[in-house]
Amino acid sequence: MIIDPGRLRRSLEEMARIGATPGGGVHRPTLTDADREARDLFAAWCREAGLAVTVDEMGNMFARRPGADDSAPPAMMGSHLDSVPYGGRFDGSLGVLAALEVVRSLDDRGIRTRRPVEVVNWTNEEGPRFPPSMLGSGAFCGKYGVEWAYGLRDGEGKRFGEELARIGYRGPAPCRPRPVGCYLELHIEQGPVLEKEGVQIGAVEGIVGITWLRAAMKGERDHAGPTPMSMRRDALVGAARAVAAIREVPGKLHPDMVATVGEMSVSPNAINVIPERAAFSVDFRHSDEVLVQRAREMVIEAIEAAARGEGLEVSVEEVSRSTALPFHPEAVGAVAGACREAGYTCRRMWSAAGHDARYLAELGPAAMIFIPCAGGKSHTELEDASWEDVARGGDVLARALITLAGRAA
Amino acid sequence: MIIDPGRLRRSLEEMARIGATPGGGVHRPTLTDADREARDLFAAWCREAGLAVTVDEMGNMFARRPGADDSAPPAMMGSHLDSVPYGGRFDGSLGVLAALEVVRSLDDRGIRTRRPVEVVNWTNEEGPRFPPSMLGSGAFCGKYGVEWAYGLRDGEGKRFGEELARIGYRGPAPCRPRPVGCYLELHIEQGPVLEKEGVQIGAVEGIVGITWLRAAMKGERDHAGPTPMSMRRDALVGAARAVAAIREVPGKLHPDMVATVGEMSVSPNAINVIPERAAFSVDFRHSDEVLVQRAREMVIEAIEAAARGEGLEVSVEEVSRSTALPFHPEAVGAVAGACREAGYTCRRMWSAAGHDARYLAELGPAAMIFIPCAGGKSHTELEDASWEDVARGGDVLARALITLAGRAA
Repeated sequence: MIIDPGRLRRSLEEMARIGATPGGGVHRPTLTDADREARDLFAAWCREAGLAVTVDEMGNMFARRPGADDSAPPAMMGSHLDSVPYGGRFDGSLGVLAALEVVRSLDDRGIRTRRPVEVVNWTNEEGPRFPPSMLGSGAFCGKYGVEWAYGLRDGEGKRFGEELARIGYRGPAPCRPRPVGCYLELHIEQGPVLEKEGVQIGAVEGIVGITWLRAAMKGERDHAGPTPMSMRRDALVGAARAVAAIREVPGKLHPDMVATVGEMSVSPNAINVIPERAAFSVDFRHSDEVLVQRAREMVIEAIEAAARGEGLEVSVEEVSRSTALPFHPEAVGAVAGACREAGYTCRRMWSAAGHDARYLAELGPAAMIFIPCAGGKSHTELEDASWEDVARGGDVLARALITLAGRAA
Repeated sequence: MIIDPGRLRRSLEEMARIGATPGGGVHRPTLTDADREARDLFAAWCREAGLAVTVDEMGNMFARRPGADDSAPPAMMGSHLDSVPYGGRFDGSLGVLAALEVVRSLDDRGIRTRRPVEVVNWTNEEGPRFPPSMLGSGAFCGKYGVEWAYGLRDGEGKRFGEELARIGYRGPAPCRPRPVGCYLELHIEQGPVLEKEGVQIGAVEGIVGITWLRAAMKGERDHAGPTPMSMRRDALVGAARAVAAIREVPGKLHPDMVATVGEMSVSPNAINVIPERAAFSVDFRHSDEVLVQRAREMVIEAIEAAARGEGLEVSVEEVSRSTALPFHPEAVGAVAGACREAGYTCRRMWSAAGHDARYLAELGPAAMIFIPCAGGKSHTELEDASWEDVARGGDVLARALITLAGRAA
């Protein structure tokens, strides 16, 4: 093993104390005092490791180790230190601290890379406080403007830019696209596949396309007693039939397709009133954009048919859409090769969740490394991973990084 | 026509100014200042008409006109002056003010009845502020204790008993069952049947049995991306299938059976999280208790089957249940006879909504008179009825009352 698994574990355990919750998770929403504390600790560790820490206008933190060819685009590794409210200890932190561990291990072993190496902590990956998610990496890749991001407000009306300055991480470096030699991100799977199949490492081939729709159905508000069934236009009945039909769409298209109705609201939502309005969300994801498009058509057809069946007005709008993004074969190959080299079982798979790597892949060859997580759970205090899997993930990160950054003579 | 339709209309219009809403309805929740004002106006009108007004411990108001046999149980007529939030001008007020108009008309025509006549305004018929509904008539009929009712709290924590005293209507008369010679209540139908069939009067044969259930399904909270469809336990999918199945239950049993899911709540209710919990209500109603029982079994079977299909835990609890109550044939016959006498088209029908008459029927022969309402709407500011229908309803009330109270020689 190239890395020091005990040191990585100690780093993760110490970081997990910041914003620790009684339930065993961490509560470290972006730009809170806990986020600042996590950033301060990370920066201190980077400086101890002899890295030069730069903070950009978005608060993204880059800790740089020079390369033999220091003008070459850097080999980046990273993830994020923010968490969802009452989230887990591994989501994000693992990718940042394993990257730091890789750099420490390169030093221990006296390995010099051709490319400079940068360990990155991306700002506001999670997004619940300041949607959209992956804001820092999105701005770094030119998808969002810095001034636009500064103006975003949280639920209490506080501005992103002011909160960033408040915690001392509105940095001087410009946040704009620059060439990236490669980008590697280690992350818990956040799904059950690796654990269920008993595979140690996922070599992530890309990020699925994610489409979010919101649908609203409008019927007629009536008294639940004296309105005969034949004269009703019940918005919840229409929505319920749509939810049941949407559940069946993925199975008609592909085993890896998923579709979820996560939100539902009913109005007036009274026990003895026929619902006038029902609104719900649809999230569907897949790696094949042709199937994503087909799923979209089938979902909308299902919603419209359900509305027609109950005589309802219906509207469907797209809330957001990111297209499927395949990672670079060279970067994915480096991950798979690292597993072969180290003797870890490996499976190629797509990430069905968004990650900062989604944006970085637009600037250079990117890939992700997944390790199993307990029960496939994430975004909860119960999120967990075994220290053996953490160590193997860090080791694969180190090996793939050396491949992609190149060993200097 | 026995009554004076213009006078009845003027009373309704003046009463509708109290708590009038910009949308043309009334907002007069129980024990608010608007309720007090409505009570004060009603009491003043009663006293002008020479009636003795008594207020009981529950705020129920009884305006009495002596009978030739004044010790006989009274012929009661009434309804309620409270409204749902942003409700209509006729629901309740019609029954109270038409009853007052009947008494005024008896005076005009010098008609003396054998039984004393009492015009009643029941407290808190609607119930949204202080559930349960029909609280005043329920206490009068011995279903609820006065002290228990006093302890009920509204959404702001205010107690029923204190609010009743605050508006000056915690009266001295004991609220307890006493013999009732007959009870008649005029009301808008709150459904579309009379209007649709072009019938002028509904002679109400009884109040349907009403059962309220609450069901909760629990599955597994997971990330909407990386959790394959085959590994999901989605509480909303289960609930949606149950809602769709419940919609089909009435059609298998009887054309007059109704079943409604009016409430639905989902947790965590986030666009990218598989719902862990979905809770919903079921309301079903029919006049035949055998069919009500069968509906109950079918609804619970449908809920349990939907939960099983998605691997969910499920609980179903009964929130409330009132059995179907047929009115007394003599009282219903008096209403039908009044229609024949006056030449109004009439249809026998059951009330699918609860009314104070439900409780009064336990103390003596009771019946209700329905008139058409626009589009079958009620519990909305859009509630409406034609003045012709209002006049016919009042006239039938007068004629039926004379029949049941008896003309004194």
